Amino acid sequence: MTTSGLRVDAARLLSRLAQLAEIGAIDGGGCCRLALTDEDQAGRDRVVGWMRELGLEVAIDPIGNVFGLRAGSQPLAPVMTGSHIDTVRTGGRYDGNLGVLAGLEVIATLNAAGVVTPRPLVVAFFTNEEGARFAPDMVGSLVFAGGLPADEALAAVAIDGKVLGDELQRIGYAGAAPLPAYRPHAFVELHIEQGPVLDAEGLTIGAVEDLQGISWQEIAIAGQSNHAGTTPMRLRHDAGYCAAAIAGFLRGLARDMGGAQVCTVGRIELVPNLINVIAARATLTADLRNTDESLLRQAEGRLDAFLAALGRDEGVTIRTRRLARFEPVSFDPAVIRCIEGVASRLGLTQRRMTSGAGHDAQMLSRVCKAAMIFVPSVKGISHNAAEHTAPADLEAGANVLLHTLLELAAQEAP
Amino acid sequence: MTTSGLRVDAARLLSRLAQLAEIGAIDGGGCCRLALTDEDQAGRDRVVGWMRELGLEVAIDPIGNVFGLRAGSQPLAPVMTGSHIDTVRTGGRYDGNLGVLAGLEVIATLNAAGVVTPRPLVVAFFTNEEGARFAPDMVGSLVFAGGLPADEALAAVAIDGKVLGDELQRIGYAGAAPLPAYRPHAFVELHIEQGPVLDAEGLTIGAVEDLQGISWQEIAIAGQSNHAGTTPMRLRHDAGYCAAAIAGFLRGLARDMGGAQVCTVGRIELVPNLINVIAARATLTADLRNTDESLLRQAEGRLDAFLAALGRDEGVTIRTRRLARFEPVSFDPAVIRCIEGVASRLGLTQRRMTSGAGHDAQMLSRVCKAAMIFVPSVKGISHNAAEHTAPADLEAGANVLLHTLLELAAQEAP
Repeated sequence: MTTSGLRVDAARLLSRLAQLAEIGAIDGGGCCRLALTDEDQAGRDRVVGWMRELGLEVAIDPIGNVFGLRAGSQPLAPVMTGSHIDTVRTGGRYDGNLGVLAGLEVIATLNAAGVVTPRPLVVAFFTNEEGARFAPDMVGSLVFAGGLPADEALAAVAIDGKVLGDELQRIGYAGAAPLPAYRPHAFVELHIEQGPVLDAEGLTIGAVEDLQGISWQEIAIAGQSNHAGTTPMRLRHDAGYCAAAIAGFLRGLARDMGGAQVCTVGRIELVPNLINVIAARATLTADLRNTDESLLRQAEGRLDAFLAALGRDEGVTIRTRRLARFEPVSFDPAVIRCIEGVASRLGLTQRRMTSGAGHDAQMLSRVCKAAMIFVPSVKGISHNAAEHTAPADLEAGANVLLHTLLELAAQEAP
Repeated sequence: MTTSGLRVDAARLLSRLAQLAEIGAIDGGGCCRLALTDEDQAGRDRVVGWMRELGLEVAIDPIGNVFGLRAGSQPLAPVMTGSHIDTVRTGGRYDGNLGVLAGLEVIATLNAAGVVTPRPLVVAFFTNEEGARFAPDMVGSLVFAGGLPADEALAAVAIDGKVLGDELQRIGYAGAAPLPAYRPHAFVELHIEQGPVLDAEGLTIGAVEDLQGISWQEIAIAGQSNHAGTTPMRLRHDAGYCAAAIAGFLRGLARDMGGAQVCTVGRIELVPNLINVIAARATLTADLRNTDESLLRQAEGRLDAFLAALGRDEGVTIRTRRLARFEPVSFDPAVIRCIEGVASRLGLTQRRMTSGAGHDAQMLSRVCKAAMIFVPSVKGISHNAAEHTAPADLEAGANVLLHTLLELAAQEAP
């Protein structure tokens, strides 16, 4: 039989996306399912339920990654797809979820058509991709790919003080599958772009060829708390001012370096955080990204130098703690060409592009050939309840995923 | 009988200071008794207990100010002293408490010596002087002085969402005394300096002749939350960066203006406050102070202009909310001279000075002649558990208070 005419059922995909979005729903149509919270547990339970309904064999590994296996006709390594279902606090409904539920939609489509692929197919979702509750982000796929011992990952402490391993036990997702559960032949991840490029250019499909490197640090400043009225400016050791100065410096650094360099201070906390008290302590985060490793290192170096000078000038102690560091990633040329060919055959507009965000696919690329499919994010809005992708684009992305997986799953052993 | 040889009992004063400091004690010897919390209630109960033991007639007004009256021999308006016993979150043990407990020590000294003053004496403590939980600060003395209707003050909402009037009821300090409970002949407040001047100059007593004006605003910024990796710098509407830019601007403003101008951003809060999300919203406070009203207005005007430009440049909405505004205060020359004369007769080193902090005495100066006595703060450390004043200085301040009150309480009706 020929599979070239197969298409996903868009209504079924949209229905599953809507049902998953009900869990942890927030105002404006978004979701809050921080990793390993009660909401994440409920989301996991729903997706695992669908996996079982679709006849997939479910496996859970010790870091809580979940895999649904559909058998192939040949004793070969599986082709894997998937993404994540955890969200940031102000997340949209498609970020991550699309890749997982489109994977399930591919399975449903193959089931309905009675198609058995030569290689097995696996639909996965990985633990704590967002990193909004635990650092580092993408920890599930990182552990899967052998980039971090499971023990270290399980000891991570959340922003709310809870330990990752304890939370995993609590929600019932500390599994016994081996690490790694599979050694995939290839991995393809469908994801919303989370940036403005496809939307601005009016294109439907992005074949992602590389991905920005990420440098995350927590910066802790110890100054001296004192009275805001009686302490002359020259005698202050103001941790709050220092936090502000760092955020201002990073804005200037990104402007000076230009190109792909972005810098963000998304978190600032002051102690005691009172109107009339000079802050004794401040904690903030620095998120630096670039597609060029040498430029990213240059940005880190300039930040280090600024912190050293600031500490001296202001008489404060500044300590930094590395939360995550990933070099830029280049995806597999053959998988990228496969995605491009599928999009072309389906008559979809497309371009090659860079991912500005980190994704589980970058971890998988350490252990197998991998690439990503992007669909547009309206106005590039991401990590925001107003995140949106048009239904036709969701459907197009799922169809590209379907035929990319079919093609990869038909590949002979090398 | 002559009272010129009377002296306070330093050990008794220190003992009461230590006992009050046990309530809400924090690491390092400081206190956390935010206004109208359980800790404040316990502190109030202890001080009211001491008032009753000393034979004072206790009255509580509708805003929770507490007064302990000692009768005089003449039917004249009372001389009042006092301060506050609420603290900031990282408060010391003398800020406010010294003025109240030195007042009680004066009463104890007069009781022991059997001295009856012509005018009655009142020892008071005023509600929410610090403003660390409710805005505005000094609200108890402000209402006492007729500067704010009690209803408005009672409706104030705490940083934890509780309503001032509800909290006052809850802790049992919503009293029925008239407003004002007394019309004082004069008011004198003993307080630690909370700044470095007396300590640096090796002096014991400050006769406070004026007090900085205070401008408090809350600044709320609404930007757009977005992904920290995929959003180009030029397309951001980053509320977190804007908060940092304001704190940086205010540092520069204080440096440019020089003189007595101080500016502090003590509180910054971001939403959603996550490492990889551009902040959608930021809330921060601006604390501006100057001894010169026209310069303080100039500082406010320059901040307004900066906020307007920042909102335009960054595409964010900035709203400000006035939390407190007090003009600089000049104290009563006759009371200042009285304090200077007493310090001189007691052989204590002294100087006239400005208060950089707001104090209840500034409110009382609206309704009667008033001034303040300062004692040194070691290294000027204030609003910090490391706040310290030497026992000999505490004793000296209490003796100056004793003889200043005796002199004022002997004044005839005008």
